[in-house]
Amino acid sequence: MSQSTLDYVLAQRIQGLDSSAIRKAFELAGSLKDPINLSIGQPHFPCPPNIIEAGAKALRDGKTAYTLTAGIPELKEALAQKYKQENHIPYANPERILITSGISSAFLLLFNSLLNEGDECLVVTPHFLMYPAYIKIYGGKMHTISEDFQPDDLNSFKDKKLKIIIFSTPSNPTGTVLNKSQLTALADLAEKTGAYLISDEIYEKFDYDKSFLSVGSFYERAITLSGFSKTYSMTGLRLASILAPAPIIKTLTTLQQYTLVCAPSVTQWMGIEALKTEMQPYIDDYREKRDFVYENLKDHYELKKSGGAFYFFLKIKGKDDDFIVRAVKEKSLILVPGYIFTDSKEYIRISFASEWENLKRGVQALKELAAS
Amino acid sequence: MSQSTLDYVLAQRIQGLDSSAIRKAFELAGSLKDPINLSIGQPHFPCPPNIIEAGAKALRDGKTAYTLTAGIPELKEALAQKYKQENHIPYANPERILITSGISSAFLLLFNSLLNEGDECLVVTPHFLMYPAYIKIYGGKMHTISEDFQPDDLNSFKDKKLKIIIFSTPSNPTGTVLNKSQLTALADLAEKTGAYLISDEIYEKFDYDKSFLSVGSFYERAITLSGFSKTYSMTGLRLASILAPAPIIKTLTTLQQYTLVCAPSVTQWMGIEALKTEMQPYIDDYREKRDFVYENLKDHYELKKSGGAFYFFLKIKGKDDDFIVRAVKEKSLILVPGYIFTDSKEYIRISFASEWENLKRGVQALKELAAS
Repeated sequence: MSQSTLDYVLAQRIQGLDSSAIRKAFELAGSLKDPINLSIGQPHFPCPPNIIEAGAKALRDGKTAYTLTAGIPELKEALAQKYKQENHIPYANPERILITSGISSAFLLLFNSLLNEGDECLVVTPHFLMYPAYIKIYGGKMHTISEDFQPDDLNSFKDKKLKIIIFSTPSNPTGTVLNKSQLTALADLAEKTGAYLISDEIYEKFDYDKSFLSVGSFYERAITLSGFSKTYSMTGLRLASILAPAPIIKTLTTLQQYTLVCAPSVTQWMGIEALKTEMQPYIDDYREKRDFVYENLKDHYELKKSGGAFYFFLKIKGKDDDFIVRAVKEKSLILVPGYIFTDSKEYIRISFASEWENLKRGVQALKELAAS
Repeated sequence: MSQSTLDYVLAQRIQGLDSSAIRKAFELAGSLKDPINLSIGQPHFPCPPNIIEAGAKALRDGKTAYTLTAGIPELKEALAQKYKQENHIPYANPERILITSGISSAFLLLFNSLLNEGDECLVVTPHFLMYPAYIKIYGGKMHTISEDFQPDDLNSFKDKKLKIIIFSTPSNPTGTVLNKSQLTALADLAEKTGAYLISDEIYEKFDYDKSFLSVGSFYERAITLSGFSKTYSMTGLRLASILAPAPIIKTLTTLQQYTLVCAPSVTQWMGIEALKTEMQPYIDDYREKRDFVYENLKDHYELKKSGGAFYFFLKIKGKDDDFIVRAVKEKSLILVPGYIFTDSKEYIRISFASEWENLKRGVQALKELAAS
């Protein structure tokens, strides 16, 4: 923003927030004639028709008014059942649940409510780009630990005054699913330091080797974030939930009343139908695509086999920015640079949430880029 | 929140936020058998059917993915036309418009982006209860000026370092529409102090005497907030817009990318249809109700004739809290206490967004309460 033409003075907390890397990728995509796009962070399949019809019905039934701040009771009840049965969280109940306008607004409520200026946070990395953004906005200090950590690696944080520990599993951008000993170590660290442990589980259903585990299943003070956006391909409809101890939910609910007011009413009714929807065929399709990408690229790039979400994080030669530009210019291939997820500049993120044809073209282009 | 059972430490910025007054009103309403409810802050009529069908169509057309962060271009274009034609803001264009998830999230983006700790704000009072909440959350200092101010009354603020000046017109809770000399004086003060001037126009269509004027029609640096929630009875669908100078919109859009991501996609498509919808018959109905309330209560309470929105702010004898409790116990009548909108405890807010029968019963009950 130019300070020269108009003197608009911004609050310090948001100075330096930048979305240019992602915007650049979108702009590049727009300028290409027949692009291969492996940059997309949402499913390629449409939202299932039964969920769509539930939305149309809710509209015609006049569900257009404010809902209760914490969400409609019917959805909170359905979510409590989901948490019990699918996430094996026995203590889940509606009092511990808040419905939010997507996981991003769950972050907003959490960081706004919990983080004081100067508070320290531990982020498992590579990490979703919003975590450091929120830590910055609310004046926190960020530490990182690699997602490949061993439990003992956390010892160096035991004497720190951590306020928040946050991670995503399965991970965006790597697809890594944290294992039980890692989750246990993180819960122990949270208990020892008094930190809030936030588990971002938006990709939980994209779990190709049945290795996903909710930390909340054995750690009752966990703050579990669950989304509808990715699982049911309804990213634009803004729906997610927070499962947390009741006093935290009460505080977040008060803050929601003053900020988002409530999650979109019609979307909440769609959420109830979504929870009844069998998504396994969609997941099986993505598992096949995961395997295809891995088998075709493992001899050309240093890469860890993704266990979940719909991403691979590829190590490249040279710098990510240069690689991205080469990919666009030589192959009309759109990728996301790794530096927005990690301190290293040696990675790119690819998404296999795609039609087969686009994916095959993209994998072929990546092979050729590795060879040249 | 009890600190004794679990030691959950909250960030300082949200301590003291409280929603108990409104919650209490809702709880009271729930416990009554045949309540008369004059507390509702949204229209009593349903969202018009053409808007509903536009939503159903958008769902079936698969409009369920993320939209562009700033909103779909079709809606921004339609809003630019609305601002030009209806609000007489000649410079309105899509670059100056951001689509948000309701006006509450517009506040969130604005206060988060603009207010540093210790910054001073001027609020025209009585005021919407979210303004002081946001000023508190972001560490600002609040000054107030009565909505009945004369231009000269602003002189005392000319040497202050104001960062934000905010008001609603028509006003919640009083229904007062600010006149041109008041708006001009506020714009002059903003220009002199370098403050951002935020005009909350969510009730603009509820303008019974054709007295409403957008400050943006003559002050180009104004930040104008417009909502769909009240006008089209779609409060639960979360849609509003901000019209502001392009550099501010750019900054708010970046912050939206990190917080709300985008306004609900389907609701945005409904917004386009909403802007084509003739609401005058609904407004005429509310004018009749406004007149009815005024004629029936003016000899029983000290009250200013409401010019817009759908509220009256009644001066009562005794304290608002006591009056509220009396109204519930003696008349099964639900009201909102005035203290959440002003420093005084001598007022209550009534809403005439109601069916005739409920409204007539409520007015009769208020007459009897004044007499006893």
